[in-house]
Amino acid sequence: MKKIAVLGYGVVGSGVVELFYRNQKKIENNTGEKLEIGYILDLREFPGDPYEDRVVHDIQVILDDPDVGYVAECMGGTNPAFDFVCRCLEAGKSVATSNKQLVAEKGDILLQTAKENNVNFFFEASVGGAIPIIRPLHTCLAANDISAIAGILNGTTNFILEKMFCDKMRFKPALELAQEKGYAERDPSADIDGGDACRKVCILSSLVFGKHVYPEQVYTKGIRDITLEDVQLAQQFGGAVKLIGRVVRLKNGKILPSVMPMIVFHDSSLLASVNGVFNAVMVWGDGVDKTMFYGRGAGKLPTASAVLGDIVDEVKQTGTVLSQMWKPAQEGDDFIATIDDFEAPRCYRTSPCGKGVFARIAAEVGVELIHAAENGCMISKCNQKTAEAFKQKLAHEGAEILSRIPVMED
Amino acid sequence: MKKIAVLGYGVVGSGVVELFYRNQKKIENNTGEKLEIGYILDLREFPGDPYEDRVVHDIQVILDDPDVGYVAECMGGTNPAFDFVCRCLEAGKSVATSNKQLVAEKGDILLQTAKENNVNFFFEASVGGAIPIIRPLHTCLAANDISAIAGILNGTTNFILEKMFCDKMRFKPALELAQEKGYAERDPSADIDGGDACRKVCILSSLVFGKHVYPEQVYTKGIRDITLEDVQLAQQFGGAVKLIGRVVRLKNGKILPSVMPMIVFHDSSLLASVNGVFNAVMVWGDGVDKTMFYGRGAGKLPTASAVLGDIVDEVKQTGTVLSQMWKPAQEGDDFIATIDDFEAPRCYRTSPCGKGVFARIAAEVGVELIHAAENGCMISKCNQKTAEAFKQKLAHEGAEILSRIPVMED
Repeated sequence: MKKIAVLGYGVVGSGVVELFYRNQKKIENNTGEKLEIGYILDLREFPGDPYEDRVVHDIQVILDDPDVGYVAECMGGTNPAFDFVCRCLEAGKSVATSNKQLVAEKGDILLQTAKENNVNFFFEASVGGAIPIIRPLHTCLAANDISAIAGILNGTTNFILEKMFCDKMRFKPALELAQEKGYAERDPSADIDGGDACRKVCILSSLVFGKHVYPEQVYTKGIRDITLEDVQLAQQFGGAVKLIGRVVRLKNGKILPSVMPMIVFHDSSLLASVNGVFNAVMVWGDGVDKTMFYGRGAGKLPTASAVLGDIVDEVKQTGTVLSQMWKPAQEGDDFIATIDDFEAPRCYRTSPCGKGVFARIAAEVGVELIHAAENGCMISKCNQKTAEAFKQKLAHEGAEILSRIPVMED
Repeated sequence: MKKIAVLGYGVVGSGVVELFYRNQKKIENNTGEKLEIGYILDLREFPGDPYEDRVVHDIQVILDDPDVGYVAECMGGTNPAFDFVCRCLEAGKSVATSNKQLVAEKGDILLQTAKENNVNFFFEASVGGAIPIIRPLHTCLAANDISAIAGILNGTTNFILEKMFCDKMRFKPALELAQEKGYAERDPSADIDGGDACRKVCILSSLVFGKHVYPEQVYTKGIRDITLEDVQLAQQFGGAVKLIGRVVRLKNGKILPSVMPMIVFHDSSLLASVNGVFNAVMVWGDGVDKTMFYGRGAGKLPTASAVLGDIVDEVKQTGTVLSQMWKPAQEGDDFIATIDDFEAPRCYRTSPCGKGVFARIAAEVGVELIHAAENGCMISKCNQKTAEAFKQKLAHEGAEILSRIPVMED
């Protein structure tokens, strides 16, 4: 009999315990091993909780028990999570975490520590919650050269954007509704300014391209400035505004990780139809063409499902799974492109100005005019410089530029 | 250095060889093992082919070479594939296959043979082509009690139905277009009568519910009788007709596997937005809620990607992966429900008859009238008996019943 220790008895940690006992027999059949929740580490007491006898306050108790083979880290943050996870790995215990901040900031170190101790550090729950994405990337898709990943990685912003799209709500009341429903925090900045999605882009980029990508290396722009008019212009052209976390490999071999609002067209991408608090991740590879993974990006049991899936796999693995490793970024490494290298079609929203104006300026800067309305247009793929030139020429014609949103090509 | 043998050098087999050599270095890094395509088994010669020196005509050559650790079976059919795969497994070689017929008809036997020889029989490519679905089901979702799976498992029929939906084509010209584009065979019956999807339902049902489900145990109905008018009535109500392969666990504990055209609503299911030759599989579990996997269901490189993903995993596994096993069905087993136990909302298309008629009859049989048009209606969830009663009462009123299509609830 092997013990599992759960670090943090909040929403996710209690979900792990609940789901484990609900499906214990199935999990044991799958792994061929008897398992038990041995300890629950938390600063608080939980009088009356059915598992209160497992609650401990000192990580040392867990480290010292040789029967603890697997640890579910569900505390969040990096302090003390980083220290605790390091010590668990050094004590020969495999760790599964739902903590995206920990993986995005310290993943390379923790993977190395796991390797040195011949155990595993798994983090399926850190991206896309319940959605199987980390493991399929390095197992099922192992024979692919993956060139890009793009997804809806934050459910809160997707909920807000859907309310703007479907119910014609303005940003502020849509955010307030998300807060009422418990989808957004009282301080919603981590979601709406893109920080949460940014961490997930770091993790996906590091895994797929093999070197650690840090949050500050990801161009990150949230949805705070998206207006109902922006959403409606996109809708008029057949698309929806989504907060897209993305990493693409450019022709020069560098990768460009980004988080920004982009317009996704219904007739070309399934991402446009992903609504509510759901997440979805599209992956492009030379074998699969494209494949998408969809599901709940957060929540008690969905996140617990991913953590326990990792623990099940840890029980079955006899050593470190090297295909899920990446290297630390070295000083002087120059593999991450800046936003200057970004190319995409764009939608401009402007003060009213005739369609003829858009067509003429598009011809002048050498792009195609894809859509035009009274108060905006969409032009074909171009680099930042051309997009800026288009904007300046518009301004020169007396048009006020109210927004510029890139379009995601599938 | 270990050798891979490829059985069958047709579309999929040649894709396996092509993709392997394209990404050989990545595959070797992932597995930590030097790999090579050692043999290609085919009855034909391939003069001028870059790998013609690997072509052999006798399976015995492969069986006798102890360096062959992994076999990619891409022949299709069960004869001689079943015999060859058995002998490979008995010779201690792990096998990955794209052959859904083989798995649907003989999976239980082959899994048992693999186990007896401590090797693996993997079949990710047999359902949903490139889409990672088999491995996520028994790894990432291992902590879930899975209650249902439903998906678009056949790209040919999905292409035809989309052409009817989007381009108002009738069934016959849409099928001819699919044939022109190479998506449908000259004899299209395996696709349009549901046989192909049926085999995939067998595989998913067996894996998830643990006992072999045979093709003849799956209620199977194709799209041959779906008319443009059916598609348009569904569209009028906000839905699309899709060929849905499905298995659900009923309240009585039995499972009900089926393949049939169903109406899927755009506002409730992402499956309604899956277009073209793409496939998608939705999975419901008590932890994840629902999660969907989407991608190319067929094609040379997509299928090869899945076969090679299996081989990569076989290289990394040291013994049989027991979580991917299922048991043979025993004589007298009574775990599969019949279509009599099927419950769903339904759409009826009829000769013109007033909306008041639908409402009155719905009230009489005790169902809710969800949508009504001049020539049809949708009623709330009911069993087969009630659905039949509704139909007979309609006929009694002088309405001609032109079609009855169940609705998939998400």
